[in-house]
Amino acid sequence: MSFALLYRSSTPHAERWRSGLERLIPDLDFRTYPEIGKPEDVRAALVWNPPHGLLASLPNLGLVISLGAGVDHILNDPHLPHDVPVVRLVDPHMVVQMSEYVVMQVLRLYRQDLAYAEQRREKVWRELPQKPPGEWRIGILGLGQYGSDAALKLKAFGFDVAGWSRRPKTIEGVRCYDGAAGLTAMLARTDILICLLPLTPETTGILDARAFAALPQGASIINVGRGSHLVEADLVAALDSGHLYAAVLDVFSEEPLPAASPIWSHKRIIMTPHIAAATNPPTAVAIVADHIHRLRDGRTLQHVVDRERRY
Amino acid sequence: MSFALLYRSSTPHAERWRSGLERLIPDLDFRTYPEIGKPEDVRAALVWNPPHGLLASLPNLGLVISLGAGVDHILNDPHLPHDVPVVRLVDPHMVVQMSEYVVMQVLRLYRQDLAYAEQRREKVWRELPQKPPGEWRIGILGLGQYGSDAALKLKAFGFDVAGWSRRPKTIEGVRCYDGAAGLTAMLARTDILICLLPLTPETTGILDARAFAALPQGASIINVGRGSHLVEADLVAALDSGHLYAAVLDVFSEEPLPAASPIWSHKRIIMTPHIAAATNPPTAVAIVADHIHRLRDGRTLQHVVDRERRY
Repeated sequence: MSFALLYRSSTPHAERWRSGLERLIPDLDFRTYPEIGKPEDVRAALVWNPPHGLLASLPNLGLVISLGAGVDHILNDPHLPHDVPVVRLVDPHMVVQMSEYVVMQVLRLYRQDLAYAEQRREKVWRELPQKPPGEWRIGILGLGQYGSDAALKLKAFGFDVAGWSRRPKTIEGVRCYDGAAGLTAMLARTDILICLLPLTPETTGILDARAFAALPQGASIINVGRGSHLVEADLVAALDSGHLYAAVLDVFSEEPLPAASPIWSHKRIIMTPHIAAATNPPTAVAIVADHIHRLRDGRTLQHVVDRERRY
Repeated sequence: MSFALLYRSSTPHAERWRSGLERLIPDLDFRTYPEIGKPEDVRAALVWNPPHGLLASLPNLGLVISLGAGVDHILNDPHLPHDVPVVRLVDPHMVVQMSEYVVMQVLRLYRQDLAYAEQRREKVWRELPQKPPGEWRIGILGLGQYGSDAALKLKAFGFDVAGWSRRPKTIEGVRCYDGAAGLTAMLARTDILICLLPLTPETTGILDARAFAALPQGASIINVGRGSHLVEADLVAALDSGHLYAAVLDVFSEEPLPAASPIWSHKRIIMTPHIAAATNPPTAVAIVADHIHRLRDGRTLQHVVDRERRY
């Protein structure tokens, strides 16, 4: 039986994936959606945002590999076969990219970049009082590969770092909170809140008016999780009321962000077009090839998603 | 004989310095310019930008302490007594602040913040190709406390870091250049040039059209040294011709930057009002007190400026 991999993504990287994977797996039958060929040949799928029902239409599918760190874009398919393992792409290069982005944006908030930009627009030259990093309380939502790496890198700059996860975790030098009560406790002591959670039914809309009210006056947020973690209207209201100071957003409930969104021109929002940690074919190809080899050799798969937890 | 310290600065921190120093040196006679009292009482001066001739008018002056890392603002006084030692303020807190600023701005250039800001103004949503940090060649002018700390911190992010100093230096993992030939060689391999030099007659105007021409097409510069290191008109010309891509400026030839300067509104310049590494009384007070104790006790002074080198 033929072993075909079906690739499906909205990015223009199909040829880089094909050539990269064919170099590592010379007999690979690489197919790019919508050119599926015989559905029964497809044994594995490498996907971002697959159309609902696509994966269910492949009778011999043995593995779904996410093209990103998250799998919400796969698990939200109501027809997703229950018995096919889904694996996450865990690429240290993406973790490093994410931490770079987070460190850069935390430094900008801490060193008052928005206030200085405001002064600049008015041609005002004034040194602002500067609190040291140890007086800035960072709160990280999510302490997986991304959250824990960012926590340690921010810690190295001297920030007062805490983190929250669903289940108890321990990270040296980082105050770790967990569970519902822990979330409220962490929010109450957070000046900069960073969302690095997976998107699940429990975390959808976690950044809402209620969470913002639990943050101290003048706090800021950074969302590098998923757009649906954030209730955008609640954020704009919290910024405009002055309760929150600023926000950094890399992800949005609808991408590309619609032209009518007030976020495009909001002076207290720093925004980027979902570039914090892009999938990087040069490093990710070997990781994906390893998933495929494990499937073909009948070895244990890695980074398999727990369908119950949804990450 | 009375032991008076004369304080002179343009910042509003006189009272913080007075209370901080009086706590450490209870019998200190702290005087704030222009309330000099009897000039012969003044044994030490703690100054930023002292009026020319002020220090020469103090007959028993035994020590001049700079309120900043640089001493150009003292040495440019033509009446400065030749036999009075001048000491620099070397505060690790300021070095840390400077490296934070440098790391933040390098990350912004590397992660294409200006290009994304440009897209945002046009409401364009497009992921740009992103070179890894190892393909970004950083060149640091000056490898003293500031330059070497910044070099190591940038190195930790994976950048390809080189540095240049007047005399040969060695820093592990950093390609070190020196002398006039070394300068040209380093510029030719620099994508982001960072000026952390002391201001001396040799380094005045070092960032000029000639230096920019020696940089590769598309390079960017960060000036956190002194405003007079940079020929501002040459920078604007190099940016507008497209030879340089962007600049980050924290210091200017005239401060506050005059309202008529084109820098205020230049889209390829990130600017801040001389805040990269501000003198921080809470940490600096003990360092200044130590200079005073050494003078009074007749012990060896530290961080004394070499008048010939001018730093």
